[in-house]
Amino acid sequence: MFKFELEKTSKGSKARLGKIITPHGEIETPIFMPVGTRATVKTMTPEEVKDLGAQIILSNTYHLFLKPGMDIIEKAGGLHKFMNWDKPILTDSGGFQVFSLSGNRKISEEGVEFRSHIDGSKKFISPEVSIDIQNTLGSDIIMAFDECAPYPSSYEYIYDSMMRTTRWAERCKAHHKREDQALFGIIQGGMYKDLREISAKDLVAMDFPGYAVGGLSVGEPLELMNEILDHTTEFMPQDKPRYLMGVGTPDYLFEAVERGIDMADCVLPTRIARNGTVMTSNGKLVIKNAKYKEDFSPLDPECDCYTCRNYSRAYIRHLFNVDEILGLRLATIHNLRFLIKLMEDIRESIRGDYFLEFKDDFYRKYGYNK
Amino acid sequence: MFKFELEKTSKGSKARLGKIITPHGEIETPIFMPVGTRATVKTMTPEEVKDLGAQIILSNTYHLFLKPGMDIIEKAGGLHKFMNWDKPILTDSGGFQVFSLSGNRKISEEGVEFRSHIDGSKKFISPEVSIDIQNTLGSDIIMAFDECAPYPSSYEYIYDSMMRTTRWAERCKAHHKREDQALFGIIQGGMYKDLREISAKDLVAMDFPGYAVGGLSVGEPLELMNEILDHTTEFMPQDKPRYLMGVGTPDYLFEAVERGIDMADCVLPTRIARNGTVMTSNGKLVIKNAKYKEDFSPLDPECDCYTCRNYSRAYIRHLFNVDEILGLRLATIHNLRFLIKLMEDIRESIRGDYFLEFKDDFYRKYGYNK
Repeated sequence: MFKFELEKTSKGSKARLGKIITPHGEIETPIFMPVGTRATVKTMTPEEVKDLGAQIILSNTYHLFLKPGMDIIEKAGGLHKFMNWDKPILTDSGGFQVFSLSGNRKISEEGVEFRSHIDGSKKFISPEVSIDIQNTLGSDIIMAFDECAPYPSSYEYIYDSMMRTTRWAERCKAHHKREDQALFGIIQGGMYKDLREISAKDLVAMDFPGYAVGGLSVGEPLELMNEILDHTTEFMPQDKPRYLMGVGTPDYLFEAVERGIDMADCVLPTRIARNGTVMTSNGKLVIKNAKYKEDFSPLDPECDCYTCRNYSRAYIRHLFNVDEILGLRLATIHNLRFLIKLMEDIRESIRGDYFLEFKDDFYRKYGYNK
Repeated sequence: MFKFELEKTSKGSKARLGKIITPHGEIETPIFMPVGTRATVKTMTPEEVKDLGAQIILSNTYHLFLKPGMDIIEKAGGLHKFMNWDKPILTDSGGFQVFSLSGNRKISEEGVEFRSHIDGSKKFISPEVSIDIQNTLGSDIIMAFDECAPYPSSYEYIYDSMMRTTRWAERCKAHHKREDQALFGIIQGGMYKDLREISAKDLVAMDFPGYAVGGLSVGEPLELMNEILDHTTEFMPQDKPRYLMGVGTPDYLFEAVERGIDMADCVLPTRIARNGTVMTSNGKLVIKNAKYKEDFSPLDPECDCYTCRNYSRAYIRHLFNVDEILGLRLATIHNLRFLIKLMEDIRESIRGDYFLEFKDDFYRKYGYNK
C-alpha cells in the first residue's frame, strides 16, 4: 500500500525525482507539504488546498491529542473524515511539540511527561502512545517518536538524546501494526557528523519505509545545515523517501533538494502570510507597506494563484489594514501556491537536467546572495 | 438602466414578488442582501458569496470613505473592480454610521462634522459629499444621506430630524448625476405614524426610483415595527422597490415581506456566525456547546450549503474551540445561505400563494411563539 519509486537523479547534484504511493493517492517528489496543525490548513478549505496543487498535508499529533482529543477523532472515523481531506496526510509524532511547547517536561526512558500548553493538565506521551494516537488519526505516513534537541546542544546531550530516539524508534516499529500506514524513522544527531552517521545507520538497519532528518533548520546557519545534510543523506538508502522536517523557505528547499531530500514541510509560508509577508519571484514583499497603497498590480505578476489572478496589492493591503480575514486567506493562498509551484518547477528542472541552473536563476531574481 | 418589475402580490398579505434590473445584473425580490462593510463580505471571497445565491451585496460608504479612502477606490476603477465583485452593489449613505460610530458629532443643516472612529481625525459628510462618495464607489443602488434617529426619541427630535432628512434627500437628488446609479430616498419618522406619513409623501413626491424605510429595527418591539411598517408601506408606491434597512433575522424578514418589503440587509447573520451561533430550520444553535462535541451530523440536515454538505458539528465546534479561521468561514457560509435560501423559499411561496402557511410552518419549526 506504500511504495516509493525513484524516477531519476539529477545531473550535477543529488536532487531526485520520485513518486510516493499511499492509500490516499500518489505524491510526486520533491514535495512541499502544507501544514494543517489542528486538522485545518489555517484559513483554508480542503478544496482550496487541493486547488493549490497540494498532494499531501501534514497535521500535528500533539495538538490533536490535546484538542479535540482522540475519542472524537476515532468516532469521526479518523482524521481524513473529520477534516474532510481525502488525499494523503502525514502526522508528526508529537515529539517536537512536547519538547518545544509543553511545560514541566520529565523525560525518561519510558517517554515524556508534560503539562499541556492549553490547560496545564498532566499528559504522557511514549513511543507507544504516539503510535496509538497516529493509528487512530489514520494518517498515511506516521513518524517515530523522537526528541528534537535544541541548537546548540552539547555533544553529550545530543548523544544521549539521539540514542534514546533510536531506542524509541525501535519501540515505535514494534508497536505499530496498521499496514496502511507507513512509519518513518527520524535521524537525529544535532550538528555532529559522527552522531548523524550512528543515528542513520541504526535506523536504516531497522528497515523503515522512509526516513526523516530531524533536528536541522533549528537556528543553525544555512551552511551548517547543508554540511550536516550532505553528510547525513550519504547514509540514507536511495530507494526510500527522505523527509527534511521543518523547512519552508525557497533557499532551504533548494538546498535540501540539491542534497537529495524528497519531502519538506513548514508553517512558515502560512504564518508569514498571516502577518502580511508574501514571497514573490522577485523576493519577499510586506503588503502593509505604504508603497503598495495605490499599486494595482498583483502580488506577483508571474504567479498563477487565485489571489494573483483576481486581486491587487492595493486591495490586499486594504484588507490587512482593516483586519479583514479575506486578507489572511489571500496571502495564505499565494504563499502556499508559491512554494508548491516552486516545487513543481524544481521537479521539471530535475526531469530536464537543469536543476542547478534553475536554482541560480531563482536565487538571482529572488535576491539571495548565493 | 434601472428598472423594477412587480410580478405579483401574494394572496392574503402584502407580500410581493418582483425583479430589480441594474447595470450589474438582475435581482429577484424579496431579497436578503449580505453586507460587505469594508469591501469584503467578512471571511468570504466574492465567488463564495455568489455560490450562496447572493444577487447583490451592500457595502458601507462611511467605512470606505475612511479606509481605504476615495482616491484609492477611484484609481481602482470603482468598488466593483477594487473588490472583484461583478454583481450589483448597494451602498448606504454613511448616515447611519456617522450617527452611530463616530465621535463629537456636530449636526447642521449643511451636514455632519464628526471625528473618525479609527483615528479621531475631523471629517465632514453632507448630502453632496455622500453622493460624491457613492458616485466614486460606482454602486448600482445608492442611498440618500439621512439621520437614523435613536429609539426612543421624542416627537420633536424625530420631527426635526425627519424634516432635515427630507431636505437632505432633495439635495442628494439634485447633486446626483450618474445615470447608471439608482438613488433611493429613505423614509424616517421614528415610531410616529403621522411623521412616517409626512416623510413618505414628501419623498414620494420627489419621485425616487426606490424607497427605503429607515429607523426601524432599532430596538423597538417587533410588534411596534410591524405596526409602523404596515402604516408606512401604505404611502409607498407599488411600482418602486421597498427596502427595509438593517433587518436580518428570519422573523423580521418574514414580517417585513408580509408587509410588502422587497429588500433587506443586516450584519447579524455574519456577526453571530463569527461568534459561533448558527440558524437552522429547528432554531438557533450555539456550536461551542458541549453537547455538540461528538455530534457528527451537519449544522442543519435540511441545509444545502457547502458547510452542511461537508462538515460535522463536532468538527466545526473543534475549529471554534481552537480559534481556527475556517470555523468562522464555515459558520458564515451557513448563516448567509440559510437566509438566502429562506428568501428563495419565500419567493416560491409567494409565487405559489402559500406565503402565510409557509411562514406559520417555519415559525413552528424554528421555535418562534407567534
